Amino acid sequence: MKISVQEQILDANDTVAAANRALLDSQHIHALNLMASPGAGKTSLILATCARLPARIRPGVIEGDLASRIDADTIAAHGIPVVQINTGGGCHLDAPMIRGALAELPLAAIDLLFVENVGNLVCPANFALGTHRNVVVASVAEGHDKPYKYPGMFAAADVVVLNKADLVDVFEFDLAYFQRGVAMVNPTAPVISVSCKRGTGLEEWMAWVTPAQKIS
Amino acid sequence: MKISVQEQILDANDTVAAANRALLDSQHIHALNLMASPGAGKTSLILATCARLPARIRPGVIEGDLASRIDADTIAAHGIPVVQINTGGGCHLDAPMIRGALAELPLAAIDLLFVENVGNLVCPANFALGTHRNVVVASVAEGHDKPYKYPGMFAAADVVVLNKADLVDVFEFDLAYFQRGVAMVNPTAPVISVSCKRGTGLEEWMAWVTPAQKIS
Repeated sequence: MKISVQEQILDANDTVAAANRALLDSQHIHALNLMASPGAGKTSLILATCARLPARIRPGVIEGDLASRIDADTIAAHGIPVVQINTGGGCHLDAPMIRGALAELPLAAIDLLFVENVGNLVCPANFALGTHRNVVVASVAEGHDKPYKYPGMFAAADVVVLNKADLVDVFEFDLAYFQRGVAMVNPTAPVISVSCKRGTGLEEWMAWVTPAQKIS
Repeated sequence: MKISVQEQILDANDTVAAANRALLDSQHIHALNLMASPGAGKTSLILATCARLPARIRPGVIEGDLASRIDADTIAAHGIPVVQINTGGGCHLDAPMIRGALAELPLAAIDLLFVENVGNLVCPANFALGTHRNVVVASVAEGHDKPYKYPGMFAAADVVVLNKADLVDVFEFDLAYFQRGVAMVNPTAPVISVSCKRGTGLEEWMAWVTPAQKIS
């Protein structure tokens, strides 16, 4: 029997992801894996969400980037517990990286954990982290054809958040075409249009994210 | 001596890339590898460039996407020879894919070849294709911090084209901060601001791309 190196790596990753999930569950933490192209607005969505969470739901964040502490510093400036992962050249987070980050976070003080993956519409979808749900953030500025070109990512989504929705006219964005593309590969994931900058459309997103939180 | 699988793959790729380069040179074709995030405007830049090329420089295009023929159909509608590569799940083009595409193109009728890589600011930078120059397309809509977060891609650029520059105010884009980030990892690549949609800023880009073309 031939097992490819890729399959062996994925198996090893899945084992650590299962352990991460068990740790999160034991701590009553609900964890979201945020995936998107570079600059779609993952960090903005995290900040807009944290600003609207009821006090009983305490957030925490793991930031993933190839380099820099820009996002972690932004999150920390809002008083939210955060760990920055730098992947070096790596194009996605993996479960061992999350295991390391969880060891550095004050888990007893976190109810809802945002994991911001590396900006990349391809590779992150292939690596389980142990998180409970996948949030794919798309941006109106990227154009309405992305679900057709990156079907694997949209197929992996539990919810699609379409950010920068205030600029639909500027970018001549065809929302119906975008929604058809998502539905083609993923008939169940809702598409929620928001503008993190303007603070619009976030009610539906907060309704999605808040019940997802298990109350300990 | 231990050689990693990754190194072996890269060696094999480089061998094919060298053969691609030899074929392109023998046909007096100058080839550009366009890399960017999803939706930054690679296809728009190709179309804007082709519309402005002098008649003596005949373009051709290789389109790379995980799925769909959207971009190839757009290019073909302008009467430009084009081959679409679908990588399946692959996050970047590689030299063997280009070898296959070159066999399908009318090489004797092409002087300037655009290779549009998969939309991804990480992986494509690691795989030589046999092309002569790397063009990194960034978009104002992605934010000004991208060179700091994706240094490998910007380090690999021979030129950085900053698209959607008409929206600098809308996105509160700090051009000086962006330029400092590029210069930090790449002191020689010029940064050229354009709006492919408005057709602005393209003179400097055309001056860069046109002398790069070897006249046969």
